[in-house]
Amino acid sequence: MSLIVQKYGGTSVGSPEKIKAVAARVLEYSRKGHEMVIVLSAMSGETDRLTALANSVQDQPDTREMDVLLSTGEQVTISLFAMAVKAAGFDAISFLGDQVKILTSSLHTKARIQSVDTNKIKDQLAQGKIVVIAGFQGVDENGNITTLGRGGSDTTAVALAAALKADQCEIFTDVEGVYTTDPNICTSARKIDRISYDEMLELASLGAKVLDIRSVGLAKRYKVPLHVRSSFVDTEGTWVVEEEKAMESMLVSGVTYNKNEATITISRVPDKPGIASKIFMPISDAGLVVDMIIQNTRAGELTDMTFTVPRTEFKRTMELVTKIAADIGAENVSGVEDIAKVSIVGVGMRNHSGIASTMFHVLANEGINIMMISTSEIKVSCVIEEKYTELAVRALHDAFALEREDHQ
Amino acid sequence: MSLIVQKYGGTSVGSPEKIKAVAARVLEYSRKGHEMVIVLSAMSGETDRLTALANSVQDQPDTREMDVLLSTGEQVTISLFAMAVKAAGFDAISFLGDQVKILTSSLHTKARIQSVDTNKIKDQLAQGKIVVIAGFQGVDENGNITTLGRGGSDTTAVALAAALKADQCEIFTDVEGVYTTDPNICTSARKIDRISYDEMLELASLGAKVLDIRSVGLAKRYKVPLHVRSSFVDTEGTWVVEEEKAMESMLVSGVTYNKNEATITISRVPDKPGIASKIFMPISDAGLVVDMIIQNTRAGELTDMTFTVPRTEFKRTMELVTKIAADIGAENVSGVEDIAKVSIVGVGMRNHSGIASTMFHVLANEGINIMMISTSEIKVSCVIEEKYTELAVRALHDAFALEREDHQ
Repeated sequence: MSLIVQKYGGTSVGSPEKIKAVAARVLEYSRKGHEMVIVLSAMSGETDRLTALANSVQDQPDTREMDVLLSTGEQVTISLFAMAVKAAGFDAISFLGDQVKILTSSLHTKARIQSVDTNKIKDQLAQGKIVVIAGFQGVDENGNITTLGRGGSDTTAVALAAALKADQCEIFTDVEGVYTTDPNICTSARKIDRISYDEMLELASLGAKVLDIRSVGLAKRYKVPLHVRSSFVDTEGTWVVEEEKAMESMLVSGVTYNKNEATITISRVPDKPGIASKIFMPISDAGLVVDMIIQNTRAGELTDMTFTVPRTEFKRTMELVTKIAADIGAENVSGVEDIAKVSIVGVGMRNHSGIASTMFHVLANEGINIMMISTSEIKVSCVIEEKYTELAVRALHDAFALEREDHQ
Repeated sequence: MSLIVQKYGGTSVGSPEKIKAVAARVLEYSRKGHEMVIVLSAMSGETDRLTALANSVQDQPDTREMDVLLSTGEQVTISLFAMAVKAAGFDAISFLGDQVKILTSSLHTKARIQSVDTNKIKDQLAQGKIVVIAGFQGVDENGNITTLGRGGSDTTAVALAAALKADQCEIFTDVEGVYTTDPNICTSARKIDRISYDEMLELASLGAKVLDIRSVGLAKRYKVPLHVRSSFVDTEGTWVVEEEKAMESMLVSGVTYNKNEATITISRVPDKPGIASKIFMPISDAGLVVDMIIQNTRAGELTDMTFTVPRTEFKRTMELVTKIAADIGAENVSGVEDIAKVSIVGVGMRNHSGIASTMFHVLANEGINIMMISTSEIKVSCVIEEKYTELAVRALHDAFALEREDHQ
């Protein structure tokens, strides 16, 4: 008998029929004797509907009241789900974030979980009930309702699994697991059976929208075995677990890409101490998030500084940077919007040299120019022209033989 | 400067536009320096939508989970309303029943308020905020969400007004106040300016669907001045207050009717001690609510017993009573579905004799047969054939000169 935390997303509980289907699936686990804690998101479309209502009342909706509003989405799902379980002849009880309670910071619409009280949940499990918890929400120390931001239900599930010392945390979604790359652009993409937390962190942050990145970090810290799988088919998905010996034999676990960034270059910046801070402090103060930063020092006292920002913030950043460039005496500011970042990820990189150069070689062979490079312990990223994205992904996927179970 | 509690029903807050309009209206009070506590219902149609969802998942929805579900309706309205106030440049904060907190019994879907904590509300009022409270909901001593049943938001408003010792409690609805009778069937029906709690209790229970009866009882107990008025026009409505001298000069304050009942007669019942209990205990045990009961003892040892039940329960009650009649040796059971109860209400009756006989005389003059009569200190009710309802109401309204402000 295990204690299992399962999370079902909005598409899995998008209608009364789907809620009943999920309840039937959960009951299979209960009948096998497992203790079940179910975390649910709002029905698909509900958060958008509520957000539209808020926007029609206030241009920039007050964030405290937004949380009061949005948290109703999960409240509806958990009550309906508990009813569905009861209709099937089993016992269940629902809890809101503040009933559990899931204590968070007070940063409305993007609060962070600080602690989870497991007493009520354990009491109800001991009474043989399926415990149904609203994802995405919590309560701050003053009793205000908070929400955790998009993807927050994943975090709720992992935090509960950690606090309850659950045997596993299963994230049910509309894909069958984590793939070696995007199956939409590479037909030989393969579902990964097991992957380490660190690799998943790099894949998640690079755009594999399967799991919320905060939940992976939390799972890593508390060593919660995560199982990402489909709510529509009954096959095993991808296990996200602690690093294992076998994983090191693979040079690369996955290839990802991100088309949502743009590059900005400040040319011929006087290369003096403190110059980077003079550029990036005002950008950070404006709430703009910079991803990659590359500095090439030219001969003499001049340097070029290139960095990437979210493409949606490109114009705003260009305006700001143009002012900064004038202040610091740089010669020119230029930007490119149609770029893509292609990355290879794998814990095997730690022990194998030459993987980065293989990547550069593969791209060069396809005639793809590399505009920026950045590397970490288990990742190499290259910025290229956007139009080569699919070609680059397929070439890298082939080159590292990711379609093979035993690739190395 | 007054402390005013206002309650707006579902039709008043049925869309973002209406919510903004109500916010503008409330701000007029705030600008005059009044401290405002606003109680809101769910947007019109929302409770029905949620109930339909529940029914599609479980035949008899679990009442605890039903309360979790239904309470989201008011949660949506209060957050949107607080946003609307803030959009208009004033400060507001919303509170759920359990945040206030409004402590209730644990009887889900029809809980009763046990206490109201006013500390949070007073704190926020002192900070100059409009305080927006979810009607209809509370929390039990174990932290479960409860709801108060249909009309529960009125009760929330009055309970808050009582606990806060508010100067007045205004109930905004889609009618302009309480009328001497139904304006739809009697064109001379007149809006009543002031009425006593007791009269309102009789009018409410008899079907004048303006105010929830529990809220009137609560207002009476705590002497909360109630003002029932329209949310669409800016005229004074009806004040429901403690009995005043002037009220006694009016013989009758209003005429009401109820077409939702049916009569059942058990004929030639052996008239023995305990026979009434043998009839009505099983009916009560079956959850059937009997309204009027009339017993006519015939000569000898036989009696006829007639009573009214909700028309929706007529068939079920007839079946049950037929069995009971056989058990106790009664001769016959008969029932009439198409009846109506017409009533006159007025505190003036206490000091004036002959009002009941005037009523009987008026009905006889119109050729209307009276099937049952029941009287209380401030009310006389007659059961008649349903087809005569409108005729009876108009004749009584005329006879007691209710169209005149100074009628007596």
